[in-house]
Amino acid sequence: MEQREVAEGCTFYHTTQNTCNSCHTRHEFSAIEARKPQTCAMCHNGVDHNEFENYLLSKHGTVFQTRGDKWDWNAQLSDALEKGGMNAPTCQFCHMEYQGEFSHNMVRKVRWAFEPTPKIADNLHHPWFENRKEAWVGTCSNCHSDSFSRAYLDDMDKGVISGVKITEESRSVLMKLYNDGLLPGQKTNRPAPPAPEKDDAGAFFQLFWQKGNNPSVVEYEFAEMWEHHKIKHYKALAHANPGGYTYSDGWSQLIKSAARINDEDARLREAAEIRAELERLAPQKRGGLLELNTPFRQAMTAGVGGFALLAGVGLLFVRNRRKEQ
Amino acid sequence: MEQREVAEGCTFYHTTQNTCNSCHTRHEFSAIEARKPQTCAMCHNGVDHNEFENYLLSKHGTVFQTRGDKWDWNAQLSDALEKGGMNAPTCQFCHMEYQGEFSHNMVRKVRWAFEPTPKIADNLHHPWFENRKEAWVGTCSNCHSDSFSRAYLDDMDKGVISGVKITEESRSVLMKLYNDGLLPGQKTNRPAPPAPEKDDAGAFFQLFWQKGNNPSVVEYEFAEMWEHHKIKHYKALAHANPGGYTYSDGWSQLIKSAARINDEDARLREAAEIRAELERLAPQKRGGLLELNTPFRQAMTAGVGGFALLAGVGLLFVRNRRKEQ
Amino acid sequence: MEQREVAEGCTFYHTTQNTCNSCHTRHEFSAIEARKPQTCAMCHNGVDHNEFENYLLSKHGTVFQTRGDKWDWNAQLSDALEKGGMNAPTCQFCHMEYQGEFSHNMVRKVRWAFEPTPKIADNLHHPWFENRKEAWVGTCSNCHSDSFSRAYLDDMDKGVISGVKITEESRSVLMKLYNDGLLPGQKTNRPAPPAPEKDDAGAFFQLFWQKGNNPSVVEYEFAEMWEHHKIKHYKALAHANPGGYTYSDGWSQLIKSAARINDEDARLREAAEIRAELERLAPQKRGGLLELNTPFRQAMTAGVGGFALLAGVGLLFVRNRRKEQ
Repeated sequence: MEQREVAEGCTFYHTTQNTCNSCHTRHEFSAIEARKPQTCAMCHNGVDHNEFENYLLSKHGTVFQTRGDKWDWNAQLSDALEKGGMNAPTCQFCHMEYQGEFSHNMVRKVRWAFEPTPKIADNLHHPWFENRKEAWVGTCSNCHSDSFSRAYLDDMDKGVISGVKITEESRSVLMKLYNDGLLPGQKTNRPAPPAPEKDDAGAFFQLFWQKGNNPSVVEYEFAEMWEHHKIKHYKALAHANPGGYTYSDGWSQLIKSAARINDEDARLREAAEIRAELERLAPQKRGGLLELNTPFRQAMTAGVGGFALLAGVGLLFVRNRRKEQ
Repeated sequence: MEQREVAEGCTFYHTTQNTCNSCHTRHEFSAIEARKPQTCAMCHNGVDHNEFENYLLSKHGTVFQTRGDKWDWNAQLSDALEKGGMNAPTCQFCHMEYQGEFSHNMVRKVRWAFEPTPKIADNLHHPWFENRKEAWVGTCSNCHSDSFSRAYLDDMDKGVISGVKITEESRSVLMKLYNDGLLPGQKTNRPAPPAPEKDDAGAFFQLFWQKGNNPSVVEYEFAEMWEHHKIKHYKALAHANPGGYTYSDGWSQLIKSAARINDEDARLREAAEIRAELERLAPQKRGGLLELNTPFRQAMTAGVGGFALLAGVGLLFVRNRRKEQ
Repeated sequence: MEQREVAEGCTFYHTTQNTCNSCHTRHEFSAIEARKPQTCAMCHNGVDHNEFENYLLSKHGTVFQTRGDKWDWNAQLSDALEKGGMNAPTCQFCHMEYQGEFSHNMVRKVRWAFEPTPKIADNLHHPWFENRKEAWVGTCSNCHSDSFSRAYLDDMDKGVISGVKITEESRSVLMKLYNDGLLPGQKTNRPAPPAPEKDDAGAFFQLFWQKGNNPSVVEYEFAEMWEHHKIKHYKALAHANPGGYTYSDGWSQLIKSAARINDEDARLREAAEIRAELERLAPQKRGGLLELNTPFRQAMTAGVGGFALLAGVGLLFVRNRRKEQ
């Protein structure tokens, strides 16, 4: 249980998906509150779900920020454009709409899921995906032309596919290093993560747990690449953010991670060759330098980097349970 | 004097703590302005005091953002809940309140200070800390149950202690590297910081001053760890931020720094072993590789990385003085 | 064409500089919208143009955030102070003003351009720059004393010059590594960027394109240093941001990059010495370790890190063209 606290922390988060008072805060239970983008922002901000930041700095969000004080927030979403004076969409308008109707089902049109993967990229022409894209065209067409809407969605898909592709290339560089046993400390100081988690290179758990040389620097980098940068890039494109979130915080971060991973690949392989060369020059030292330095290095790191349990995060779970009281 | 400009820059900042017109901007001297969270944000944002961001994205801040336009900002804090329609707290409400009274003393309930340290963690049961915690329970109880308030504060403490613990583990890895003289360039290109600052590993000055190989990469990493990540993690928990600031920008950054520091430890010790092995193989080269390459490397870096004086920051001090004119 | 998509992405952006409906969104074509800082923020946010963030957290922006809801946004800029109740400036007020008149020419007073360079730093006393500075003094003097305005601008210049200086020092460390051929993979796995781009160390293209070991980690670091950190530091000073953007996200990032580049310099030169020493010890291996490991490393990286084309970014260009439809 104790080792699962990160997961529990996330659970706390996601239970809010199933309660009304996450968005309609209790006591007031306000529809106006729930109609404003800042309500979504409480969860949908930050590294792998920065939809709020993308929206605010898009043209949609700019109009909301500069003109939203004149909109009638008492208007229902179905009336908001015509009667509410809403001249740019909110999170709620686009995500609650489906074929002209508004509901609380906010994932009805989701195509790329939370994280774009090669499997999704390879199946975009499947009717399941095509139908959802058509539904999006309908949503955008509330304000834009059909051809503009379609072109934007097509181009967004191309951008997301680029993000998937560069991430997969880096994944194969990392997996090769891992399989060759070349990560720093991999053979001498790599504790396993708490069960039921299994050791893996660049896995999600490495963003929240560490001990000894697990994860290595290049693995944390890759975990950030697929879990943060790839997703940020996708969500910026999906929310029509023309600037930083697409380019600098999205694509350029993918470039940085790819560069760092290739740089590490070159360095770690060169270090392996130097160790091999030293062994050839001094063959009497059986076992090689890597093993040779084990006791030395282990003595250095004994008692150090110890079980970095995410004890604190567990509080959120506890908090969640107590909230009911 | 010149070398103290960073400190002076901070001084500029902190003098605002003692003048009314920091919050009640001169000429208008508005109470409404001073009651809004954005007034606090002018200073309380960013790396080691991101209280504003934590607040805005908490449930407290979400209600402020979506419903604050309907509150009566002319109401005094003591009337804000009952008569002002304030259905979520502001910075001012929680930090100016003490046992039911409101004043301009905003540190009356502080327990973890600006930076959580092992000494605080070890003394939380001292009456000085206990009494302040009780005062917080009173504050939270304006809206929450006593048991919920108490549980949240207990759990926050546990989270902060986790942050202190992982930071101290990394500190000992770094200090061992420093004491063993294994940091890159430590023996060949490490100028002392300007007096009265003394050289140290991962010290505060290394965030704002550098020359040659002072600081090394792993030291800057540790300076960020204790000064930015540990504090961000603490302040996110303290301000009920359920998401990114606690997890990704807080805890996960602590994990990243710990991983990087252990990775460096493994690398730098392996590099030392390689140098030792080369010396064993070519014993005629007295002094070892480290000394041997000194003239070469020094020639390379001569005139480079020179005194990176924070001249520019001094302007803020100057500005401050001129402001009086 | 395909390789120029990043540039095209930027082109998309900058065409907005020449169309009215970038700021006066079409259909409503609102002057109020165009007068609010959030309209500028759609483009002027993020890594190398974070003017919006700087403004919001300055005293100017704080007053806008807390009191702006009481200003008369229908007032023309020339009446805003007297009749509009505007007790702090907006982006529009300072940048559209020139010698008492307001126009749509927003670069009339620019002195440091988009990126501060040594050439500008060396020519600040040229009448061209002096006249523009005088024009700024006039702008600031709408609210501040002449002597305060002048002192702030002088001190801002000193700060910007410090940023230019530390960046140039790091540039020379990097260029020496590049000229000495010491970057990881530089001799074995460094593809050229797509024409007409030419290979260079720490160049702009390396923020958005990568293949094999181009860019190396230290080059991406330097590209961030001159293109992001130096510019952020400058723009924070220029927009009177007293905190994070000047110190932590500005100056301290410059310090970090300088420290990392010097650290890499020490490491890469030591690695070169180790390779040289190994060659002296095993002279029969002609060509040295660097060449020796080429086939090994190349096999490892074959097919990997491949052409990371910024295909997705091109969509914005396409979108731009379709917008006209």
